[in-house]
Amino acid sequence: MSKSRRDRQFRPVAVPDVDVAGFFGKWQDAVCDSTAETLLDRCVEAGMVQAINVDQPSPGVVIPILEWGGSTQMFWDSDLGKSIETIAYSLYRKPNPRLEERADAIIDLYEKLQDQDGYVNAWFQRVQQGRRWTNLRDHHELYCAGHLMEAAVAYFQATGKRKLLDIMCRYADYMIRVFGHGPGQIPGYDGHEEIELALVKLGRVTGETKYLDLSKFFVDERGTEPHFFTDEAERDGRDPKSYIQKTYEYGQAHLPVREQKKVVGHAVRAMYLYSGMADIATEYRDDSLTEALDDLWDDVVTKQMYVTGGIGPAASNEGFTDYYDLPNDTAYAETCASVGLVFWANRMLGRGPNRRYADVMEQALYNGALPGLSIDGKTFFYDNPLESTGKHHRWKWHHCPCCPPNIARLVTSIGSYMYAVADDEIAVHLYGESTVRTKLACGAKVTLRQESGYPWDGAVALTASLTAPVRFALSLRIPEWAVGATLSVNGQILDLSGIVSDGYARIDREWTDGDRVALYLPLSLRPQYANPKVRHDAGRVALMRGPLVYCVEETDNGGDLNAIVMPKSLPQADIAVLRDLNGAVALDITVEREETSAWGVALYRTTPPERTVTKVRLVPYHLWDNRSPGSMLVWLQAEK
Amino acid sequence: MSKSRRDRQFRPVAVPDVDVAGFFGKWQDAVCDSTAETLLDRCVEAGMVQAINVDQPSPGVVIPILEWGGSTQMFWDSDLGKSIETIAYSLYRKPNPRLEERADAIIDLYEKLQDQDGYVNAWFQRVQQGRRWTNLRDHHELYCAGHLMEAAVAYFQATGKRKLLDIMCRYADYMIRVFGHGPGQIPGYDGHEEIELALVKLGRVTGETKYLDLSKFFVDERGTEPHFFTDEAERDGRDPKSYIQKTYEYGQAHLPVREQKKVVGHAVRAMYLYSGMADIATEYRDDSLTEALDDLWDDVVTKQMYVTGGIGPAASNEGFTDYYDLPNDTAYAETCASVGLVFWANRMLGRGPNRRYADVMEQALYNGALPGLSIDGKTFFYDNPLESTGKHHRWKWHHCPCCPPNIARLVTSIGSYMYAVADDEIAVHLYGESTVRTKLACGAKVTLRQESGYPWDGAVALTASLTAPVRFALSLRIPEWAVGATLSVNGQILDLSGIVSDGYARIDREWTDGDRVALYLPLSLRPQYANPKVRHDAGRVALMRGPLVYCVEETDNGGDLNAIVMPKSLPQADIAVLRDLNGAVALDITVEREETSAWGVALYRTTPPERTVTKVRLVPYHLWDNRSPGSMLVWLQAEK
Repeated sequence: MSKSRRDRQFRPVAVPDVDVAGFFGKWQDAVCDSTAETLLDRCVEAGMVQAINVDQPSPGVVIPILEWGGSTQMFWDSDLGKSIETIAYSLYRKPNPRLEERADAIIDLYEKLQDQDGYVNAWFQRVQQGRRWTNLRDHHELYCAGHLMEAAVAYFQATGKRKLLDIMCRYADYMIRVFGHGPGQIPGYDGHEEIELALVKLGRVTGETKYLDLSKFFVDERGTEPHFFTDEAERDGRDPKSYIQKTYEYGQAHLPVREQKKVVGHAVRAMYLYSGMADIATEYRDDSLTEALDDLWDDVVTKQMYVTGGIGPAASNEGFTDYYDLPNDTAYAETCASVGLVFWANRMLGRGPNRRYADVMEQALYNGALPGLSIDGKTFFYDNPLESTGKHHRWKWHHCPCCPPNIARLVTSIGSYMYAVADDEIAVHLYGESTVRTKLACGAKVTLRQESGYPWDGAVALTASLTAPVRFALSLRIPEWAVGATLSVNGQILDLSGIVSDGYARIDREWTDGDRVALYLPLSLRPQYANPKVRHDAGRVALMRGPLVYCVEETDNGGDLNAIVMPKSLPQADIAVLRDLNGAVALDITVEREETSAWGVALYRTTPPERTVTKVRLVPYHLWDNRSPGSMLVWLQAEK
Repeated sequence: MSKSRRDRQFRPVAVPDVDVAGFFGKWQDAVCDSTAETLLDRCVEAGMVQAINVDQPSPGVVIPILEWGGSTQMFWDSDLGKSIETIAYSLYRKPNPRLEERADAIIDLYEKLQDQDGYVNAWFQRVQQGRRWTNLRDHHELYCAGHLMEAAVAYFQATGKRKLLDIMCRYADYMIRVFGHGPGQIPGYDGHEEIELALVKLGRVTGETKYLDLSKFFVDERGTEPHFFTDEAERDGRDPKSYIQKTYEYGQAHLPVREQKKVVGHAVRAMYLYSGMADIATEYRDDSLTEALDDLWDDVVTKQMYVTGGIGPAASNEGFTDYYDLPNDTAYAETCASVGLVFWANRMLGRGPNRRYADVMEQALYNGALPGLSIDGKTFFYDNPLESTGKHHRWKWHHCPCCPPNIARLVTSIGSYMYAVADDEIAVHLYGESTVRTKLACGAKVTLRQESGYPWDGAVALTASLTAPVRFALSLRIPEWAVGATLSVNGQILDLSGIVSDGYARIDREWTDGDRVALYLPLSLRPQYANPKVRHDAGRVALMRGPLVYCVEETDNGGDLNAIVMPKSLPQADIAVLRDLNGAVALDITVEREETSAWGVALYRTTPPERTVTKVRLVPYHLWDNRSPGSMLVWLQAEK
């Protein structure tokens, strides 16, 4: 890749600059109609709103303090933050005065809560007043602040109301005074990353580089020696060696970030850190960060990622384990972790379009993150196994309610992941029915209308609306799987080989109002085999169509799904459109199936099961457990 | 099966009546030379001996009291009991005055500890004096007593010393007064079964039917309504609903035993109960128990047993879960549970030889129990997965040290599992170099010398030594897998079809001194396929030779064992004898193997891995992790 390309800076468009319809429009409607209000209701029920209301007595310790020295109640600000962020996006799509009033009231409470010096935190102002900034390693203090900052930016962009933005700017200004290497300052960073990416959002929306500088400080300090967490523990009278997570890898603080090569520890923390690093790499054109990020990217996508884009197989550390350790039935693969992978991938596009990142962004979005939400927006997956015996179902809520608002805010802000803009270039990273309005550096306003039934259909049409002809590059992702893709401008076929770079077709021309680009991405069914080092997928095959991983469910196919055997050469699939799954495309294929009924009663015998030819129905993995509950399987036995 | 056959009563021969050599002789030597003393050392180190020494202060609560209201320290008597039992058997094989002295000293301490009324228990006499008989559900009181009884019987048989036997008879006599439906008596039974089978041993060795009657009382009472555990909890001021194990299925007390059809709960408890039930069925010729046991037997062997004879897949309840739930890498399959399955299977032979039980006894013995001990007798497996990524190794000890003495006492008493005797019949259940001395009801003394390299070699020769000709039946198990077995007496081939019943060749004739029986059991390699309802084994095959399950280990075959693909038709195996594994037979076979090095870096791709033809070495599963540590696999990919 040429240096010059990397010197461009792509930033996502603001959420209100994209109108989303089609596939993601329905998901956004579900959040607007159900999830957004549900999130707030649950926060109120949990006591989170009382917790920030200085006119009411402090609720005290509602959730007990655990072995690690804290309580998940310490994260309440983050839950409120992510809920307000979701509400903000939903208000843009569907005005809802009652919901807006409720959000405004919470913001008023935060205004009253805010300390004279700018500090805002429900736990350390109302429960453990003396403990401010005493344990950054464990207490999630800056993490909470980060989520409130993201909420502030979203609420400002959606409603034009500045109050929360002003609160969080005051808080960030206070942080600038508190953190640093000067006398009396704290030379530290948070155990749970998040503030880094949030400060970049704050910097971008306010135009204040001081917030970017603070983010860069947190990124640069992380993992350096002498180790801040060790010094901090000693100052606080705690034994640094008795750290419950045992290793600073848990929070990616084991090495300076530029020296990190292996993706380790808590998966969400890792994704948030790398997201912040990528933002800083873009804003500061920092090649040293970009190189470290490329190593980390390779590490996760070639050794530690489920075919769904799920990451972090283990519940014990909510994170990464050994290379190629990808158990299917016990996969943790937290919804939040795939949401985080989407965040990171999106930010890796800051220095130029590249399908190496965007293909995985799409894969994790559709198959790792989206399963976290039911189609009615009312129930939530926390962990996302690739095989279920029928006991895994979405929750109404979760004792650690991080995932519901995380997937909800991603879905409602999806427009800003679809399009990104540099000075003279518009990149289309994701396809789907939508309209984007943006302005180029030259001042020209561009509106692009994208018409597509994607991901069910591979035809995409883009029409430009312009007040006057203008030259810019339009970069369109050609996914690696889209073998045989075609592209035309105003009916004229383009030779992709001449214009595709890093997997994007770059059409650099003078555009005129009404210009129409037609892209066709063949969505043929394709098998996915895992590297033979992944023992859990040995002898098995998964099926994808376009960006979607498919699975078999008991409701369509009966039980004993492991008795299904995919023929060596992939059979032709018949398409069925399922109305009860929002018009999803199901695939009916002819396979072999081991006979469970003819086997008899023995548990073991010397001859293999007999097989008969039969049909099975595959449905998109992200839609599983939306109908009759039952078993589910992604990796099917493959005939050898 | 004719009623008359079931009316016979087979009882195992006493351990000192069998001299064992060959395969099990080496294992017994390892226990005599290492394990027996190690067990005692560990008991001393843990404080168990101090705990029963009334001349020393009580150690108090050494192991903290846990959520269930007790401490594993409550089981210390059982650890001492099983250790003394192991020592007893080892003393018979190899006199060891120092070890015998140490055992005698412990027995002296128990004599001093015993209460005036006969009660003996380290915890309730020395730590929680007021809590005797207050919580049979959780406190393992009768369980501890049972293990001390088994020790007493073994020590008496091995050394002729009666002291411990007398102590335990006094304790049992006291129990007879305490338990029952009379006024002031306790109408209950223990949460952890064991006393039932122990009392039968005590009854058999003393000839006292009162001990059998008490055992029958415990069996008959179990699970009846009104429920004893519920009443007991209420009397003790505990809420019966707050039972930490949630269901009385945990201790098989959810239904009267004759109504139980499904094997549930804690695996060791289940096995010990069924063992006791089978003993009572034999002693009382109780068909109602035998029928219930047959249902339970079918349940476990057709739906809940690993190919290794391992049982109880889950760590959470140390026991059974759902039908066909047999995960390989996370298999709990506790050593003690397979030891217990051997106990149960052996006792199912009490009403007549039947390979339906004896084949499983052998399978669980070699593949489920024996892996629990290293070949040097110094380290121990607690759980026995069928797949390891290289992190599973034998312990020097375990925080709950039940398995080491359990496998040690089984190995050293194996002679009594090989041979059983009814009035006019000798059954040979297991093969292996040994000599048994027994007496028939008619008074005739019979010595049988069995010469065999079994399980490495399938040739078995039995020679009778008699002082005078005598008529009796000799029943020899023909394992179901031994297709093509042949049998001759004094060189004359017998037609098996005429004399085999329930899988045993019954030779009923007048025997003369020097008569020689030759049995040949072909040990060809055979594949094992699992019922397709076992999702974990789908598309996979395990290999057995004779009674032994084989596996592949990294030390012989390199890593990525899941890349090995067994051809559809089983290849010829070359035999290699491994000196470093006690002369074990290894099998070298030609297979295909997926190329991990040629795959490249991608995690997923659209074409399956390429395969090359190569050789792999299989070794007996029970011997894995006795050489260089590494990964291991039983169920290999099978070509379809």
